[in-house]
Amino acid sequence: MSRFWSTTVRALQPYVPGEQPKLANLVKLNTNENPYGPSPKALAALQDELGDSLRLYPDPESVRLRAAIADHFSAGCGDITLQQVFVGNGSDEVLAHVFLALLKQDRPILFPDITYSFYPVYCKLYGVDFRCVPLDESFALRVTDYAQPNGGIIIANPNAPTGRALPLAEIEALLAANPDSVVVVDEAYIDFGGESAVPLVNQHPNLLVVQTLSKSRSLAGLRVGFAIGHPELIDGLQRVKNSFNSYPLDRFAQAGATAAIEDRDWFDRTRQAVIRTRAALTRDLEALGFEVLPSAANFVFARHPRHDAEKSALALRQRGIIVRHFRQPRIEQFLRITVGTDEQCAVLIAALKEILGA
Amino acid sequence: MSRFWSTTVRALQPYVPGEQPKLANLVKLNTNENPYGPSPKALAALQDELGDSLRLYPDPESVRLRAAIADHFSAGCGDITLQQVFVGNGSDEVLAHVFLALLKQDRPILFPDITYSFYPVYCKLYGVDFRCVPLDESFALRVTDYAQPNGGIIIANPNAPTGRALPLAEIEALLAANPDSVVVVDEAYIDFGGESAVPLVNQHPNLLVVQTLSKSRSLAGLRVGFAIGHPELIDGLQRVKNSFNSYPLDRFAQAGATAAIEDRDWFDRTRQAVIRTRAALTRDLEALGFEVLPSAANFVFARHPRHDAEKSALALRQRGIIVRHFRQPRIEQFLRITVGTDEQCAVLIAALKEILGA
Repeated sequence: MSRFWSTTVRALQPYVPGEQPKLANLVKLNTNENPYGPSPKALAALQDELGDSLRLYPDPESVRLRAAIADHFSAGCGDITLQQVFVGNGSDEVLAHVFLALLKQDRPILFPDITYSFYPVYCKLYGVDFRCVPLDESFALRVTDYAQPNGGIIIANPNAPTGRALPLAEIEALLAANPDSVVVVDEAYIDFGGESAVPLVNQHPNLLVVQTLSKSRSLAGLRVGFAIGHPELIDGLQRVKNSFNSYPLDRFAQAGATAAIEDRDWFDRTRQAVIRTRAALTRDLEALGFEVLPSAANFVFARHPRHDAEKSALALRQRGIIVRHFRQPRIEQFLRITVGTDEQCAVLIAALKEILGA
Repeated sequence: MSRFWSTTVRALQPYVPGEQPKLANLVKLNTNENPYGPSPKALAALQDELGDSLRLYPDPESVRLRAAIADHFSAGCGDITLQQVFVGNGSDEVLAHVFLALLKQDRPILFPDITYSFYPVYCKLYGVDFRCVPLDESFALRVTDYAQPNGGIIIANPNAPTGRALPLAEIEALLAANPDSVVVVDEAYIDFGGESAVPLVNQHPNLLVVQTLSKSRSLAGLRVGFAIGHPELIDGLQRVKNSFNSYPLDRFAQAGATAAIEDRDWFDRTRQAVIRTRAALTRDLEALGFEVLPSAANFVFARHPRHDAEKSALALRQRGIIVRHFRQPRIEQFLRITVGTDEQCAVLIAALKEILGA
């Protein structure tokens, strides 16, 4: 605490990201990175960017990248235009701007009690009033619980850290019940089995969908996220971005992300591989006695009825395997385990067999 | 305007960055980029970063980069530690966090009437009250004008867009007169002839110095800026950063910036080349009848007593040369011209001769 701090900074409760250990040779299953590398076409585009042109500012409006994203989604769900796409330095930055531009309202906003733990942090940062809506006993989200006065709604779909997905019909019901609030669907993990709400944006001016290139495009190291919605919502985000940082995406981020979005083939192959491995990992964990929530993400959320989660996480760590454990009510007996390669998952399962004495 | 916008976003007046034209073959002297490319060692470090490890998140705390910055400044000015260094996605992001963490106070903050035009934009974004202190008639900053109650002070040194530098003794006087306010010195252009205030941070717990790698390190395309100050000030910035975006610097930004900071030789050679060209450019402009403010930056600020600045800027543009003109009281008759290569400056001078009919 310093006498020079603003009252805002005094009140903050910063987010704690998953550990990024500097040790090599760990089996790193704690921050939901993709086990496969980025598209070779993205790597080639990054190579092209390497040179003296780095002395020049990047395009402040990331037009090529936004056009590539618009094209990508137009193929699946009607016309998405450049004016419906916002990009930022990771979906965390996109979400930060969303909280200030669209979710800072007179009434409290709503989000689940168990969800991405950055949401309440943004609320503290910008003075956004919020109310947590409990998930049901099976950690499912009941959209009817959101039929209450609110200044906006944000949900993660699939939810984190549970991995559970909400069907598109439920999202539609949520939108229909809240036409006067912005509804933000944070789809960081959507490409591993969920149904994206992007096809709904042209019918619902209050819908904003946020995605990231950190998971299904294997570019966590490049920091690119985006939002898709009505041009007026996007314009609100642009105004905040242009009052904060004109050039949030560097030349590498723009070039690599554009090529990654354009490479549908690599995207489809790698995410299908993750989905296949997830099914095998789920079976193997269940065979060890774990209860595994149904996951549409690139991680599973699992608890063992007879073994303490924190102790298991520590025992795994001693064997060079890191998974994530949250010291948080309702979920303190769960482990969140990223779906790695088949080999990494085999190492994990072997270690758990030892630890559980199975 | 949208009914879904927050009151904050409704009130914003976003910053308008200098044009980043997509045409090739322009003589681009409008956004103060370095005419020389980045350090070859930075390019080599970037090359090493290119590969499958991009699937992994970067170091959220940018420890290697912050250590390199601390080392760089320790050589010149006593011990600077890791805990005194903050990094961000360009100095614009660093400044944004500074406004929220340190300059949002009960009393209005102070900055010059003619300075970096992003400062009032940040104030609108975060609801920071401010008062503009006029520069004198020769566009010099009088530190005695800042001896008034304030919630903080921010100045650019050298100032933008004037290029005028303040001697270190004046900064010391400013600090001594305002021990209860944070004094931020934005040194984006310091390496082209100014005296950095970094050597003062260990004596003044209220001093924060902000720098960028976009100018003297030729890395505008990579988006890296930093701040140096007392650990408590840095901690305040870290708290905001960790409530906003855990991973603001991607893998390329961290690796390239670290290598660029470590390559003192390239840094010294290229900035000396810019300083030499600035002297020649100043002489040539004066020979054409321009009044040129004394510049310690990589640009000059010049007006012609008989030729309208906006018209001259347009005429230059028609010849494929872009410089910056501000439609702003007191400076609407000035052109801000980036110091390019000797060849670019020769092209500019030849065009001005034609335009002015000299």
